[in-house]
Amino acid sequence: MTTIGILGTGRVGGRLAHALASVGHDIILGSRNPDAMDPDRTAGLGPAIRLAEQRAAIALSDIVIHAGPGDTALDRLRAHEAELAGKILIDVSNATHDAPDGLPGELVHPDGSLAERLQRALPETRVVKTLNTMLFPVMTAPGSLATPPTVYLSGDDEDAKKAVAGILADLGWRPEWIEDLGDITTARATEALILLVPHVMRRGGFRPFAVSLAR
Amino acid sequence: MTTIGILGTGRVGGRLAHALASVGHDIILGSRNPDAMDPDRTAGLGPAIRLAEQRAAIALSDIVIHAGPGDTALDRLRAHEAELAGKILIDVSNATHDAPDGLPGELVHPDGSLAERLQRALPETRVVKTLNTMLFPVMTAPGSLATPPTVYLSGDDEDAKKAVAGILADLGWRPEWIEDLGDITTARATEALILLVPHVMRRGGFRPFAVSLAR
Repeated sequence: MTTIGILGTGRVGGRLAHALASVGHDIILGSRNPDAMDPDRTAGLGPAIRLAEQRAAIALSDIVIHAGPGDTALDRLRAHEAELAGKILIDVSNATHDAPDGLPGELVHPDGSLAERLQRALPETRVVKTLNTMLFPVMTAPGSLATPPTVYLSGDDEDAKKAVAGILADLGWRPEWIEDLGDITTARATEALILLVPHVMRRGGFRPFAVSLAR
Repeated sequence: MTTIGILGTGRVGGRLAHALASVGHDIILGSRNPDAMDPDRTAGLGPAIRLAEQRAAIALSDIVIHAGPGDTALDRLRAHEAELAGKILIDVSNATHDAPDGLPGELVHPDGSLAERLQRALPETRVVKTLNTMLFPVMTAPGSLATPPTVYLSGDDEDAKKAVAGILADLGWRPEWIEDLGDITTARATEALILLVPHVMRRGGFRPFAVSLAR
C-alpha cells in the first residue's frame, strides 16, 4: 500500500482515485478548495479516499499524480516545490491551448515539453510522464479495448519509472503494454501525440482509444 | 490500372514500386539521375516498372508518390509545380533533422507541417499525406503485424483521398485501418508522431511497428 496524492478532482483525478483505492492504496485527493467541493461528488468517495487541500495532499503522500490542467501546471506545481522534494511526480496532463470547439488545440510548449519543464523547475522531484496519450476512460481500463493498447513512460530516474510501472499494473496495464521510451526529454514525443486526439474525436466521437504501437 | 510516378529510389520508393506493380499498376520510378543508378538495383525492377528522370516520371503519371527525403522535399517539389498541376501528390515523407545517431530528430516545421507547406506551394496539386507514421516495411505489409495497424489520411480534396484510399487498399490496408483525419492541416498531427519513432527504435531495435489507434 502506498499513499498516493492526486492533484485534480475532475473526471481524470476522480477515476484514478477510485481505481487506485480499489486495489488497496491510500488515496488523498487534493483540491484547491476542498470545502467548496460538490457534496454529491465527495459523498461517493468512500473510506479509502480522503479529501485535502493540495499542499497537504502532497505533504502526506509518497507519490503524487498531477491530473489537473496541463496549461497551468508549471506555475501551480512550482509553488509546491518544497513539498514535492524527494517525491515521485507522475504527470498525466497535456499542455494545450483549447481549440474553438473545446478540444485540445496547439501545444503550449511546442519547442519542448511540459514534463521537461516540470523536471527543470522541480530538480529534487523525480518526474515521470505517462498516461497522457489516450482518452481518459482507457487509463483505468486498458483491457476494455479490443486491441492491445500502449502506455508510454518517460523519466530520468529508473527506480521512479519502476514504481510508476507498478501503479500502471495496478490500473490493469500488462507489462507488454508499457513502453519505456527513455529519459524525460522523450515526453516531448508523447506530448505531441495529443495533436492527433482532437481530429480523431471530431471524426469518431467520444470512443475510447489509445495512441499505441501496433506490432 | 493507374500510372503512378514514384519519386525516390531508396528502400521506401522501391518497396512501394514493387508492391503497386504487383497488383497491376504501371509504375514509373523517378530518379534524379537514372543513368547513374546502381545496375543491381535496376536489374530487378521487372517489366511493370520503368525508370525515368523525375520530371518525366511526374509528367507521365496520374498520381505521384513522394518517397524522397522530407527535409528537402519542399524545394525539390516546388521546382516541379508545372508538371504536378492537376495531379494527386501523395507525400509519405517526414521532414526531420537527423539526430547524431542517424535516426529522425527534431521536426523541420514544428510550427506547421511539410504537407501544409507543399499544399500552399503547389495550389494546383491535390496533396494527400499518408503512410508517414510507421516503420517502412509496414507500408506494404500491414497485415503482417500481430495487431491491427492504423494508417492516417490528411488532405483538402475528398476525391483525392478516396483515390489514395484505393491505393492503400492495393497495399493491403483494410478499410477499418484507414483513419481519415480531415484536411491537410491535420498532417501536423501525424508528422509529429515521427518524434516517437527514434525512441522506440533505440529501445526496441528495427522491429516493425505503426503508431496506431487501439480501440
